[in-house]
Amino acid sequence: MAKEITPRSENYSQWYLDIVKKADLADNSAVRGCMVIKPSGYAIWENMKAQLDKMFKDTGHVNAYFPLFIPKSFLSKEADHVEGFAKECAVVTHHRLMNNPNGPGVVVDPEAKLEEELIVRPTSETIIWNTYRDWIQSYRDLPLLINQWANVVRWELRTRPFLRTAEFLWQEGHTAHASKKEAEEEAAIIHEVYARFAEDYMAMPVVKGRKTANERFAGAEETYTIEALMQDGKALQAGTSHFLGQNFAKAFDVKYLTEANKEDFVWATSWGVSTRLVGGMIMTHSDDEGLVLPPRLAPIQVVIVPIPKPNGELLEVADKIVAELQSHGIRVKVDKDKKKRPGFKFAEYEMRGVPVRLGLGKRDLENNTIEVARRDTKTKEQLPLENLGAQIEKLLEDIQNNLLQRAKDFRSERTTVVDDLDTFKEILENKGGFISAHWDGTTESELKMKELTTATIRCIPNDQEAESGKDLVTGKESKGRVLFAKAY
Amino acid sequence: MAKEITPRSENYSQWYLDIVKKADLADNSAVRGCMVIKPSGYAIWENMKAQLDKMFKDTGHVNAYFPLFIPKSFLSKEADHVEGFAKECAVVTHHRLMNNPNGPGVVVDPEAKLEEELIVRPTSETIIWNTYRDWIQSYRDLPLLINQWANVVRWELRTRPFLRTAEFLWQEGHTAHASKKEAEEEAAIIHEVYARFAEDYMAMPVVKGRKTANERFAGAEETYTIEALMQDGKALQAGTSHFLGQNFAKAFDVKYLTEANKEDFVWATSWGVSTRLVGGMIMTHSDDEGLVLPPRLAPIQVVIVPIPKPNGELLEVADKIVAELQSHGIRVKVDKDKKKRPGFKFAEYEMRGVPVRLGLGKRDLENNTIEVARRDTKTKEQLPLENLGAQIEKLLEDIQNNLLQRAKDFRSERTTVVDDLDTFKEILENKGGFISAHWDGTTESELKMKELTTATIRCIPNDQEAESGKDLVTGKESKGRVLFAKAY
Repeated sequence: MAKEITPRSENYSQWYLDIVKKADLADNSAVRGCMVIKPSGYAIWENMKAQLDKMFKDTGHVNAYFPLFIPKSFLSKEADHVEGFAKECAVVTHHRLMNNPNGPGVVVDPEAKLEEELIVRPTSETIIWNTYRDWIQSYRDLPLLINQWANVVRWELRTRPFLRTAEFLWQEGHTAHASKKEAEEEAAIIHEVYARFAEDYMAMPVVKGRKTANERFAGAEETYTIEALMQDGKALQAGTSHFLGQNFAKAFDVKYLTEANKEDFVWATSWGVSTRLVGGMIMTHSDDEGLVLPPRLAPIQVVIVPIPKPNGELLEVADKIVAELQSHGIRVKVDKDKKKRPGFKFAEYEMRGVPVRLGLGKRDLENNTIEVARRDTKTKEQLPLENLGAQIEKLLEDIQNNLLQRAKDFRSERTTVVDDLDTFKEILENKGGFISAHWDGTTESELKMKELTTATIRCIPNDQEAESGKDLVTGKESKGRVLFAKAY
Repeated sequence: MAKEITPRSENYSQWYLDIVKKADLADNSAVRGCMVIKPSGYAIWENMKAQLDKMFKDTGHVNAYFPLFIPKSFLSKEADHVEGFAKECAVVTHHRLMNNPNGPGVVVDPEAKLEEELIVRPTSETIIWNTYRDWIQSYRDLPLLINQWANVVRWELRTRPFLRTAEFLWQEGHTAHASKKEAEEEAAIIHEVYARFAEDYMAMPVVKGRKTANERFAGAEETYTIEALMQDGKALQAGTSHFLGQNFAKAFDVKYLTEANKEDFVWATSWGVSTRLVGGMIMTHSDDEGLVLPPRLAPIQVVIVPIPKPNGELLEVADKIVAELQSHGIRVKVDKDKKKRPGFKFAEYEMRGVPVRLGLGKRDLENNTIEVARRDTKTKEQLPLENLGAQIEKLLEDIQNNLLQRAKDFRSERTTVVDDLDTFKEILENKGGFISAHWDGTTESELKMKELTTATIRCIPNDQEAESGKDLVTGKESKGRVLFAKAY
């Protein structure tokens, strides 16, 4: 099977599509730009959802559900918001079909035109803040810490499975607060939750930082982002958390009575991560043999392959191993197929990214051992059957840590400090990765750099150090370095 | 607060709306027919989802995700399907907005008209079977046992929160099989899962049966249903499971190679339950004081109210109780509000349907007891603090069982065997409930009965006994009784 995967060195973009297809994660659909998330891909998203949902609830958030549709007029209430991105979207204009009077099939009933068009939500700030107006009267109603798991639609021209699709699945948090400070803290808390999820669960190291004014969410006063580095040296924006100031409260007239009995506009945040994370995780760890999954999010963590094929004796031992591994909280499967050969199965599980493969043969039984193969390093060893659960639990942790460390090392190696434009161009084209360079803080310089090189400022890192220097494009004064990269 | 609830006896329909509003379950939205599911309502749906998802996975199903949009032409490929219900739906005709050239706001960009209109899925058989064509080549690819959690849209004229909304949340299973028998068994397995969920978790007794040809899902060869009885004597269709024969396989040309190496069309089922279940659960158990929730699905099972208000000593004991209850897997909350009075809080938790309330006062501490109030019976008793976790665990089970038994008793009392049309009309109008009556098996009689009385055949019960009799409308031969009722 692996032969069918294009090597990364040859064509990274095709390699990614091959992995998605061969690991059975997603499929194209009959609808332009919309993908089908297949069971193997959806199971990864389910694991991500479960963990993120827990982290949101542990930080005091609750879930709710708001309508899929947004009245068209809502989108233009917050001026920056509509300018920023609400244009390419799915517009519902009618609410009925009828039998085609002139032939087979159905046509849109011209009588069933909506008075006001409805937009399939590209994000829900507008419909939610329109609702919050009824929910918030006084400081006693605050904070509102609400999250929604939903599908959204943005009519993208060029799409790639998981990374950019017309419809995608995500969560969007929308919180309301009685003070600027509290809203800013909320945006920072979620920024931290996202970074922790990326590193601890996805094993994907991220740089935490703020977006420049130019790259901010449309309608936000501050956008916090986590930025990851893919194996082709391009950056992936993996999760953003926005401090929205009072912009949406003003646009939708959401006021509250303060403790001092005065009227004020409510302070807001919004934040989201999406199925894009699945794409990011694939690109961070996988190799030319297929998908590599961090154990904490792998739907199947361990597969047991009886060798050369399943029989009563081998399956009996396998079932005991399953029970022991499950008692350690491990997600394990036994391959009971009798037709395929072990070599074929090995390649298949490699392709699908199962972190650990246990090969169970007759000789192993005699020796009371089992062959353990790691997906990440592709190394094998014999382990004693005794106390296998604890050993595998430890091994899965080692794999999780190794994947994170490997990705961190890759990122270190591909992060370059640069002080002049020629070197910048050379590094960007030949080495790729993050470039740490001075910037004068103006949108003018930022856009000029993008025009000259296609690189954008991924973030102003939270750990930016004060350092004086010169902007690479304008030569003007800079007070610190920011991270540039080509980006997905 | 309870004063604000319209009594059931006065206006059942308004009572339901009052409960939904006062228990903070849902809200109207700015979009016609679409509701906002508030955190308290969504938490119930989350608990339902978690349990159903587990039951689906335990019976071998996996989750996936298919596009929100369906190309218009797909809907007319299965003739019965489009005739049956695909007409009232949301139609996407454009994919871009633009600044209004003649004033403020945005307008639909006339240049961005789609070549083929897209329908927001009212159900996904068509897009899924179009996809299955690529996934199924041989019997080795079967069965496909796939479920999807999704939102769907049906442009309903008259809507009611949870019971009937333009957009609703649901799960839809779509399975593909290599034989008729296996597909029929699958439909029956899910029918059983739904019934078990309704009775064991929602404490909502259901009649299991088959729909008549006239009431079947559009495109199905057999529809299994679970029918519940609401307190106003009307029936609620709570979950359906369809044997689809080869209809969708033929419409979308999904063939497979059999073990005997012949080509045949694939056999199908589909099945779904929705947020309607939340409405059914509300209507089954609640009373004039507010929501009543079965403990197994209640987001908060026990609330501890310090009396007369929280102080250090009471909170210290409360925290210990919380820890003990949590160790028994109980979802418990302490009310730490210092401003509201106990009486106000009691009414509030009654309104919100918390199954058990623990009143913790100074005198209780001295006596090592606690006051325990049940929401279902509104009775109170003093229990020793010792071993409280086990006592409350038992009490929650008692409440769960009591709610089911109460609903069963109500249903028995409201199920009437009737043998002539006049009595049928009289019972239907004055007593309501299920009417068990003979039917000749024809759609003609069924429609005539509906015209005469508004009652429909809810189902042909699975436990129908062979019994000869006369159809109440036509006087023709009948071989057994079916269940009639007015329905939601």
